[in-house]
Amino acid sequence: MKIIGIIGGIGPESTAEYYKRIINGYRKFSNTENYPQLYINSINMTEMLEYVSNNDYKKLINMLVTEIEKLGKIGADYIAIASNTPHCVINEVVEKVNIPIISIVDETCKYIKNKKLEKVLLTGTIFTMEKNFYKKTLEDLKIECIVPNDNEKKIIQNIIFPNLENGIIIEKDKQLFKDICNKIIKDKKIDGIILGCTELPLMIKENDFDISVLDTMEVHIKSILDKII
Amino acid sequence: MKIIGIIGGIGPESTAEYYKRIINGYRKFSNTENYPQLYINSINMTEMLEYVSNNDYKKLINMLVTEIEKLGKIGADYIAIASNTPHCVINEVVEKVNIPIISIVDETCKYIKNKKLEKVLLTGTIFTMEKNFYKKTLEDLKIECIVPNDNEKKIIQNIIFPNLENGIIIEKDKQLFKDICNKIIKDKKIDGIILGCTELPLMIKENDFDISVLDTMEVHIKSILDKII
Repeated sequence: MKIIGIIGGIGPESTAEYYKRIINGYRKFSNTENYPQLYINSINMTEMLEYVSNNDYKKLINMLVTEIEKLGKIGADYIAIASNTPHCVINEVVEKVNIPIISIVDETCKYIKNKKLEKVLLTGTIFTMEKNFYKKTLEDLKIECIVPNDNEKKIIQNIIFPNLENGIIIEKDKQLFKDICNKIIKDKKIDGIILGCTELPLMIKENDFDISVLDTMEVHIKSILDKII
Repeated sequence: MKIIGIIGGIGPESTAEYYKRIINGYRKFSNTENYPQLYINSINMTEMLEYVSNNDYKKLINMLVTEIEKLGKIGADYIAIASNTPHCVINEVVEKVNIPIISIVDETCKYIKNKKLEKVLLTGTIFTMEKNFYKKTLEDLKIECIVPNDNEKKIIQNIIFPNLENGIIIEKDKQLFKDICNKIIKDKKIDGIILGCTELPLMIKENDFDISVLDTMEVHIKSILDKII
């Protein structure tokens, strides 16, 4: 069976969720109590976010390449980075490592294309909303990508850090998130909303919106399971 | 900061719990949002338990040594095996690897000694209750170790597998576990009960008994945090 290596810790709550969902997903599929071996390299999120916020891409790429190569060295067949934010440099990282990476961004955008959505709202950390990687990948597939305005981005960032990142769900924050998104959905005629941060699905579920909710973690895990099975 | 390598997957529920508790424990201690890098090698429990139940110690030792050495190769400073059962061969494994292992058995027995307990009841998987490793370590410290009878062992094993192992807590099972233990505690004048399976603390809490409850996972995690900090 193929071994998946997960780059985790960004943040730990969603890494634990990835781990459990991969194991439960495999068990459900195979209808056994068995599950695949896997590796987790839980990295330092503070260091990673510092590089992202300073646009220090060289250090960010080096960090990711180093940590991915460790998992390759001990036999991982595929890598999955359990977070959207570091995918801002995914193309550069893919070029530098000898091990295939299952990109949460590519998998989500392909999924959106298959669902025939045309105009999606991107939510996530401020970095994911501000940087170009989702927008670029979506536009290549002829899908329009709308992001919240600067003030809304700050509010969403403050909903994610520190509470949601630590697994704490605040009802008031959830309502605020929904209000911001619903306003944009109505104004811009959006047909899908990307939960582009692996902690957002801890708070937001499919039935929280009338349009398609794209749980990037869920899409990512399905792709990971496809590779293992 | 020192890097801990966890041998996990035995079972996955308790591995996820180790991961979260190490991170939260570190954050609480350091009073920051920061947390240490760590590795998890989540191994194949079915294979491991097969070796244990067939008394195939050679294969069990080889498996653990191989998986531990992988984490050593990528820079782990210490290893913790996140399960009691494989500690039946811990001495043989320690001899074969070049990386220090924080043993859940040694740490728990030292903790019991420090608490000045004299006669403890050992609960856990049928393997942990039947094999000698806890009993031997406790007796070396002049602590008496009582185990349930054969019928009680089977009942406890069936409480752990498959429900508790999968994180499912059944109230009737909890009461049954408490009844079995309370009978032995009364009959044998026990002053401490070892939850010698890292899934048991998902169901049994400190205030479920009138005597000392020894949560081996909790003791293990405290020792792990001591090494990191």
